[in-house]
Amino acid sequence: MNNDIYKKSLELHKEFRGKLETISKVKLDSREALSLAYSPGVAEVSREIARDPSLAREYTLKRNTVAIVSDGSAILGLGNLGALAAIPVMEGKAAIFKEFAGVDAFPICLDTQDTEEIIKAVKQIAPVFGGINLEDISAPRCFEIESRLRKELNIPVMHDDQWGAATVTLSAVINSLKLLNLSKEEVKVVISGIGAAGVATARLLLVYGVKNIIFCDSKGIIHKDRADLTPEKIELLNGSVADAKEGSLADAVKGANIFIGLSKPGVLTQEMVKTMAEKPVIFGLANPTPEIMPDVAKSAGAFIIATGRSDFPNQINNSLVFPGAFKGMLEANIPQFKIEMFSAIAQALADYVTDLSPENIVPTMFDKGVVTLVSNKIQEFK
Amino acid sequence: MNNDIYKKSLELHKEFRGKLETISKVKLDSREALSLAYSPGVAEVSREIARDPSLAREYTLKRNTVAIVSDGSAILGLGNLGALAAIPVMEGKAAIFKEFAGVDAFPICLDTQDTEEIIKAVKQIAPVFGGINLEDISAPRCFEIESRLRKELNIPVMHDDQWGAATVTLSAVINSLKLLNLSKEEVKVVISGIGAAGVATARLLLVYGVKNIIFCDSKGIIHKDRADLTPEKIELLNGSVADAKEGSLADAVKGANIFIGLSKPGVLTQEMVKTMAEKPVIFGLANPTPEIMPDVAKSAGAFIIATGRSDFPNQINNSLVFPGAFKGMLEANIPQFKIEMFSAIAQALADYVTDLSPENIVPTMFDKGVVTLVSNKIQEFK
Repeated sequence: MNNDIYKKSLELHKEFRGKLETISKVKLDSREALSLAYSPGVAEVSREIARDPSLAREYTLKRNTVAIVSDGSAILGLGNLGALAAIPVMEGKAAIFKEFAGVDAFPICLDTQDTEEIIKAVKQIAPVFGGINLEDISAPRCFEIESRLRKELNIPVMHDDQWGAATVTLSAVINSLKLLNLSKEEVKVVISGIGAAGVATARLLLVYGVKNIIFCDSKGIIHKDRADLTPEKIELLNGSVADAKEGSLADAVKGANIFIGLSKPGVLTQEMVKTMAEKPVIFGLANPTPEIMPDVAKSAGAFIIATGRSDFPNQINNSLVFPGAFKGMLEANIPQFKIEMFSAIAQALADYVTDLSPENIVPTMFDKGVVTLVSNKIQEFK
Repeated sequence: MNNDIYKKSLELHKEFRGKLETISKVKLDSREALSLAYSPGVAEVSREIARDPSLAREYTLKRNTVAIVSDGSAILGLGNLGALAAIPVMEGKAAIFKEFAGVDAFPICLDTQDTEEIIKAVKQIAPVFGGINLEDISAPRCFEIESRLRKELNIPVMHDDQWGAATVTLSAVINSLKLLNLSKEEVKVVISGIGAAGVATARLLLVYGVKNIIFCDSKGIIHKDRADLTPEKIELLNGSVADAKEGSLADAVKGANIFIGLSKPGVLTQEMVKTMAEKPVIFGLANPTPEIMPDVAKSAGAFIIATGRSDFPNQINNSLVFPGAFKGMLEANIPQFKIEMFSAIAQALADYVTDLSPENIVPTMFDKGVVTLVSNKIQEFK
């Protein structure tokens, strides 16, 4: 199937020569129109903004425009392909921003992968934008870049690979708990993959109140006696009540209720699924090939299965979050994102699913109500 | 008149909340459409570009998109108002790019005015763009920034305040020579104002073959005994055969055929016009108020009068050049601008005026043929 999609996608991109265009909302068909939209009339707009910088929000594209910033270091699941290869992905993201939320977005693909240089470049280009969507920047640099920019800029900054993934995953966890009839305090969760999405998902689950989480990376279970732990991993360990000891992913999933894979294809086997608690819940979110294929998980007894793909039920898709989240921030002029906002959005998305079933635990992004739901929820934080 | 334009312009900007929007050329109305424009299909496009970076031109917005980069240090004639105040001007420029030449353009207003930082930032954001239009960056930093970026980037870079102004001015000079029946070797020219536009206009006139030019700055005639000369002023002095000696602008214009003002309002008086050669040609290009108002120059005997304004005949307007120039560079994939291109465009613009008269020495930007003319001319340099 993918080969056909790949061929068609290349053809589409070649035909359109890129997906985005920048157009003028104002017609420039007469000298008078030009003299208002451009010189000499625009001089007064510049003078007004110089007098009161907050007017840039009233008179320019700033209020409704987001920069989608990537250094191309972690493009989709493809790895470090660099800035040029990131362009078509960021254009697609910008297209989704506009089509789903009416937010204008523009790709900024940076020709540097140095943390300090990225931070500096984003701060330098910030005047034009009302928000910064960081995208496809590899861990652990993405944590420092996001947290520094949130402190040093006065516009909202969000690394979507972290918070988009984490928020939709939490909403899927919330609805799985309903179907399992388990509380957030008693559920046992395993997260495989402690990269950008894994760290944010873990942080968000802990903030929401899920207590018992075992974290696994490529070396197995993360426990306090390991010598190779990053600050993020130590922080997560300290937040969980699970008794994490040396062991493999297979050891970790024994007796667990929910497996959340944000790692790589094929790491979860049928045998491992069979060792989980009754009614195992499997989120295989590696893209495009999940940690375990849905049919394989199903025949091993999985009760709920979610993936990142649109061709299976329960798609865990960032697009449920970022368009509405930025729309809400921009409309309400909220200065910065906070983790509590993502927790509230996850709850709202979960509650939005009225015909809950194992095949329907998250809304679809084509549901026109989702953007408004998310945007309104975030505006409660004004 | 301007007060009314200013008021209307503020209203227009408030109503539209910015002039630019970024839209998707591809509809995202189904799962299949999304899977081609975005994940998973777009992965193949990224892989192809990583394999062959030149394909970014085929598959992304890069081929048709120009960055309009400003640091807000010299906005219109208003001075250093900073990055936020530059946004509405750059949006207007982007709107002109799209409306007149079909070129997509996006404003990049930088929160730094340091030469090296600007050069670095532009290089870092360059991957997304097919060209860089520098705009409203003050002299002398603009010279270093343009020349360094031309050397260090593999996409065309042009500071429009320099080359847009210079090119249209040269085309107006060429047609003035026809009406004066003078050769480029014998005409005597005075340039008042040796900033961004003045230096480029002087360089371009010299390359075209105008030999006798006296340059004046705020301190009067530029001559070799002055101790305060910048490298650009020394270079220009060395290129001219005029016998430049200490003196004022009033001294400089005595006996001159053409006055080119790229300086500030009111510096040229009726008395000075009366001391010029027979049939004086006066270009008062300071914006929005020229070096001498057209009616004042006329009553002092001016033969040809041009300004930067749309409400008088003979508007010397950058918009005659930059849309077509970038369109041609992008379409033909020409790596860098050269001064000979601007000389050739100036000649083409001059020759395009068939009903030549003192009130009609340059084409108007609303003539649909101009963009094609300029674009085709520049493509001859491929």
